[in-house]
Amino acid sequence: MAVVVSLEEERAKKAKSFDTLVSLVKDDLEKVNRTIIDRMHSPVELIPQLAGHIIAAGGKRLRPVLTLASAKLAGHSGERHVKLAACVEFIHTATLLHDDVVDESELRRGQASANALFGNKPSVLVGDFLFSRSFELMVEDGSLPVLAILSRASSVIAEGEVLQLITANDTDTSEDSYLEVIRSKTAALFAAACRIGAIVADRPKAEEDALDSYGLNLGIAFQLIDDVLDYSAKQAVLGKTVGDDFREGKITLPIILAFRRGNDEQREFWRRTVERLEQQDGDLEQAIALMEKHGALADTIARARHYGEVARDALALFPDSPVKQAMIDVIDFCIDRAY
Amino acid sequence: MAVVVSLEEERAKKAKSFDTLVSLVKDDLEKVNRTIIDRMHSPVELIPQLAGHIIAAGGKRLRPVLTLASAKLAGHSGERHVKLAACVEFIHTATLLHDDVVDESELRRGQASANALFGNKPSVLVGDFLFSRSFELMVEDGSLPVLAILSRASSVIAEGEVLQLITANDTDTSEDSYLEVIRSKTAALFAAACRIGAIVADRPKAEEDALDSYGLNLGIAFQLIDDVLDYSAKQAVLGKTVGDDFREGKITLPIILAFRRGNDEQREFWRRTVERLEQQDGDLEQAIALMEKHGALADTIARARHYGEVARDALALFPDSPVKQAMIDVIDFCIDRAY
Repeated sequence: MAVVVSLEEERAKKAKSFDTLVSLVKDDLEKVNRTIIDRMHSPVELIPQLAGHIIAAGGKRLRPVLTLASAKLAGHSGERHVKLAACVEFIHTATLLHDDVVDESELRRGQASANALFGNKPSVLVGDFLFSRSFELMVEDGSLPVLAILSRASSVIAEGEVLQLITANDTDTSEDSYLEVIRSKTAALFAAACRIGAIVADRPKAEEDALDSYGLNLGIAFQLIDDVLDYSAKQAVLGKTVGDDFREGKITLPIILAFRRGNDEQREFWRRTVERLEQQDGDLEQAIALMEKHGALADTIARARHYGEVARDALALFPDSPVKQAMIDVIDFCIDRAY
Repeated sequence: MAVVVSLEEERAKKAKSFDTLVSLVKDDLEKVNRTIIDRMHSPVELIPQLAGHIIAAGGKRLRPVLTLASAKLAGHSGERHVKLAACVEFIHTATLLHDDVVDESELRRGQASANALFGNKPSVLVGDFLFSRSFELMVEDGSLPVLAILSRASSVIAEGEVLQLITANDTDTSEDSYLEVIRSKTAALFAAACRIGAIVADRPKAEEDALDSYGLNLGIAFQLIDDVLDYSAKQAVLGKTVGDDFREGKITLPIILAFRRGNDEQREFWRRTVERLEQQDGDLEQAIALMEKHGALADTIARARHYGEVARDALALFPDSPVKQAMIDVIDFCIDRAY
């Protein structure tokens, strides 16, 4: 019993670790939030209404916080990182709006998604607006290297999303193909968010690359855990519906591992449910049972830990500091969401 | 009879006028087409497949031709306009892909639309890809003023599209609101396409503004005629379905004029058909008959001529040249499509 309490306490402590990073960039993050509110404005009122709905819906601001933290770690003392952190959040929000349309999602962060509330059409167009506005902000900042990084990241995200669409419902998807998808659709923006922190601080290429690597590997770990959470009771707490990926037939690592490790009968179960989408009551429970039987969820978390370790080592060339420690703790925060 | 033949001949001559402009920038346009094919490439094959479908579907390349022509008129002698003309076409193509999803269109330039052929999801995502790729190309060009113009134009387009969505099905829409919509959703990109021609040639602000004004007013005229064509038998020749706007309840100037000029009974007809979308056989024919009765189509064309005249006068500060004459002829080309 004592051990259980201690583990709970350990987890509660770790759960605070994102708060530590947030508290270290608190003033800047408030400026980012003001910039976001200010710059999502449009005379067409539906735009700030819809954008405000998703932006205010309790996102963690993980990506802009990473830009702020990276800039701080790299020793930046100006204000440019504030506007660029807002750019990163605008790009992220635009992709969320389009994702929810593409996935036909009805919930986002525990609330009705923008497409469910306002319809698909304005969600597509407001996504386009935020995306364009993000580039307007980057132009105001005036750094071509930053523009290069974020325009490239945006192309890569779109490529990843299309790749995901193609591999959907295909149980033959390999672990490598899946990794390519999440590297593109999720990790590329984490990497860019961190890299621009080094750029505004005018640091050497080695530090730029180190922050990019931290972001990329953190992003991969983050997405792996997201994919585990879709099969976890923890989801309800996060305000997401459980089993969305399963119902859509989205092939994520837990399914890939369970399929590969399964016998013929089990593989037929996966083909019926996620390829042919012939689902019936009890299938989600059966899917979770098969994942647990084959250690698919635990091993997906283990894979996430691997990328988390790479992210941690990427920061090694920076001298120790509170912000560096908080950035390392964020790795645990991302992975411990799975428990 | 002789008069009729002469009018036909006159129209046939005018119908060639876009070809004249194209022939004047022919070599550059071939380079633009090569750049487009080259840069829509992605290892994710569905992206060039889908993008290639819409890009190859016989578009006139009107906007990139305007960039090339404007650069030529402004005396540019380098190669930068080629890449930027491709950027303009990528932005245009991205908005077409998203438009067709939003409008649920099944035809585009006489062929199955990308969303009808490939589905809404990849159309949204490939639009995002082309949009991002466009900014990557701009960054390669390296001009912050160009990036400012095209990122601003992209935001304005999205605002216009959202505004159009809001005013759809509202017969109270004023002519001014409608003009605001088409100024944003269509004319802003025409204006930007022309303005960057002056920028690459490093011309004084007066010439930049003149080319912007030419593009803006040409764009308004172009869209007004497009809206007339949706009620014209000429549509079938252009490979578009007739009456799409009517079926969707899209409020364009022909409806605005017919509604304002109509009696109570006629206004009730418009409210039933385009507000409540309670349409039955014969309604489209009745709509066209009411438009003709009130001169709504002829007067929309007259409005287009007004903007065409403004576009023509905007070019007055440039010395006469074959490219200037061909740009003036394009105004007539855009308007004469209505006959």
